[in-house]
Amino acid sequence: MLPEAIEAMTEQLARVGNPSSLHTAGRRMRRVVEEARETIADALGARPSEVVFTSGGTEADNLAIKGLYWARAPKRRILISSVEHHAGLDPAHWLAESQGARVELLEVDEHGRVHPETLRAAIARDPDDVALVSVMWANNEVGTVQPVHVLAAIARHHGIPFHTDAVQAIGQLPVSFTGSGADALTVTGHKVGGPMGVGALLLARGLTPVPVQHGGGQERDVRSGTLDAPAVAGLAAAVRVAVKEQEALNLRLSRLRDELITRVRDAVPDVVLNGDPRDRLPGNAHFSFPGCEGDALLMLLDAKGVECSTGSACSAGVAQPSHVLLAMGADAAAARGSLRFSLGHTSTREDVDRLIEVLPGAVERARRAGLS
Amino acid sequence: MLPEAIEAMTEQLARVGNPSSLHTAGRRMRRVVEEARETIADALGARPSEVVFTSGGTEADNLAIKGLYWARAPKRRILISSVEHHAGLDPAHWLAESQGARVELLEVDEHGRVHPETLRAAIARDPDDVALVSVMWANNEVGTVQPVHVLAAIARHHGIPFHTDAVQAIGQLPVSFTGSGADALTVTGHKVGGPMGVGALLLARGLTPVPVQHGGGQERDVRSGTLDAPAVAGLAAAVRVAVKEQEALNLRLSRLRDELITRVRDAVPDVVLNGDPRDRLPGNAHFSFPGCEGDALLMLLDAKGVECSTGSACSAGVAQPSHVLLAMGADAAAARGSLRFSLGHTSTREDVDRLIEVLPGAVERARRAGLS
Repeated sequence: MLPEAIEAMTEQLARVGNPSSLHTAGRRMRRVVEEARETIADALGARPSEVVFTSGGTEADNLAIKGLYWARAPKRRILISSVEHHAGLDPAHWLAESQGARVELLEVDEHGRVHPETLRAAIARDPDDVALVSVMWANNEVGTVQPVHVLAAIARHHGIPFHTDAVQAIGQLPVSFTGSGADALTVTGHKVGGPMGVGALLLARGLTPVPVQHGGGQERDVRSGTLDAPAVAGLAAAVRVAVKEQEALNLRLSRLRDELITRVRDAVPDVVLNGDPRDRLPGNAHFSFPGCEGDALLMLLDAKGVECSTGSACSAGVAQPSHVLLAMGADAAAARGSLRFSLGHTSTREDVDRLIEVLPGAVERARRAGLS
Repeated sequence: MLPEAIEAMTEQLARVGNPSSLHTAGRRMRRVVEEARETIADALGARPSEVVFTSGGTEADNLAIKGLYWARAPKRRILISSVEHHAGLDPAHWLAESQGARVELLEVDEHGRVHPETLRAAIARDPDDVALVSVMWANNEVGTVQPVHVLAAIARHHGIPFHTDAVQAIGQLPVSFTGSGADALTVTGHKVGGPMGVGALLLARGLTPVPVQHGGGQERDVRSGTLDAPAVAGLAAAVRVAVKEQEALNLRLSRLRDELITRVRDAVPDVVLNGDPRDRLPGNAHFSFPGCEGDALLMLLDAKGVECSTGSACSAGVAQPSHVLLAMGADAAAARGSLRFSLGHTSTREDVDRLIEVLPGAVERARRAGLS
């Protein structure tokens, strides 16, 4: 967590007060929440009334996808990219299994990109029956940035709500809710240096998803549950700093990442870079190592102090090739032999040096293990 | 928050690591989460595998009620007490509106108590069609403790899952999940001196509700979303301390509350105590003040430094008489003229002295305002 976020959060932890209570302590907590709402709206190009706090990105995705689907009944089609996070895909598949939805996956090219023509053609097959479109701003595994502005405009042309999961993008890319043309946008705390367990759905005025979490009616009656004022304060501090420093961080990380890619290619000549070669998150480098099992390579690197990921942490431990790589046309073996290196605000050139120092040996050992 | 909970939580805030990641930092966070799970299970008479972490009580109630309803399809009846929190009632009503459920409210007596005979008769009308029963352990407004052990046994006799929202009970009354006979039990952090934004559903083995929040499949595939390790650590510390000190706190608060009741009755002779006169939460005193608007009285007391609530904070600001009091047979005027005084681990006799000092004047002013 960013120091600013820790400070903003811990300042509230020892205080008493439910932001929905009418007494003094409650009203003080309410002010903390409303100031956080303004900070986030300001940083992300939204109106304060468009910020709906949630317990994180997964809840925000569930609320956008299930909530808009139910709100748009009897429309049945959900158009969603084939490379979404499970927090987007799984709600859609559940709606298909049990709520009558028809989920249509939008294909991606070999870089993981949804082409505007793909969305246009999908809508055109039956525009009046489309409940919503959901395409993430940038992919959490391979780092590919989607043309969200164009996709949102296509959906808007048909009056169809467009949702984008911007969890990976905020703090790395310029993100403006109003400027993007999206109707709903997912934010989470722990990806921007804020706390876990808190996030938000930015939600355009006039759009009222059916709640996923019913109860006391906090948050515009769209999301119920006691507002977690300390976490909300921490989220706001993190978003403010992350957005303010986004441009400088982007520049620094892009250079560091390009260096990392060049040096990994030098060290392991047959490595394959996955994702869009240009239009990608500055902090993301994702590779396939032919002949390696990704999990084995991860453990060998971890033993040398280099921490990386196979696929998404949310599904880690699951011995299945990444659905993102499969959607991009990779075969199962290449998909299993893949690793993601993420750079963040604490990453330095020394970290890259260390990786390059240990990578060739680890790859060699992983390949030998794969042969035996 | 309890100092122990703040310490346990802040210790984790500056650390990096997603508990679902495979690398060292991830595995360390995973240990924090699993130790917290064991602590909570131990304190509440459950097995560690029966603890499903959530973002709080509202989410746990939604998961129990919606999730069990869907899991038990095509059974349609939901038997739920008429005095549940909105986090229980609203999911049930939504299931009736949009998912084909039949919600049947279990009546309460004038003290807000569900009689075992009421549940028995309700089940008997069509036992095979009952999806679940939900009755809270103790009421959040009037403090009445329900005979959950007896109610759970009746449901179990018919093989029907029994859910209880124990948010108010933990730390005030002895709560054992296994001992209660319930199949699902809601826990929340901020009512036991822990953090907001975190809670748990205790869930008996073999019971698999359909998820309300889909995604990466964390938490037994029943609840997805990045595990908020710092909050979970804070929750565990709070539950441990709250349960350890429950007996002593109960004794101390019961005495203080009885004194508060006696002195409020002396100060305002026509006041009416609501809720069960004996079987009630030790920290709860709930009154109707004839001829007063509760909101006006609350503001007058607040101006004198006494913070209390009308109804539930979750619905505060809503100018409707409490559904709990109406279910107990109060008329709308009496329901609107009601206030709840809550005592907790920091409450002292001086707090009661202060209330008694300012209450008669505030009641008099509120009555005059009501007449004008």
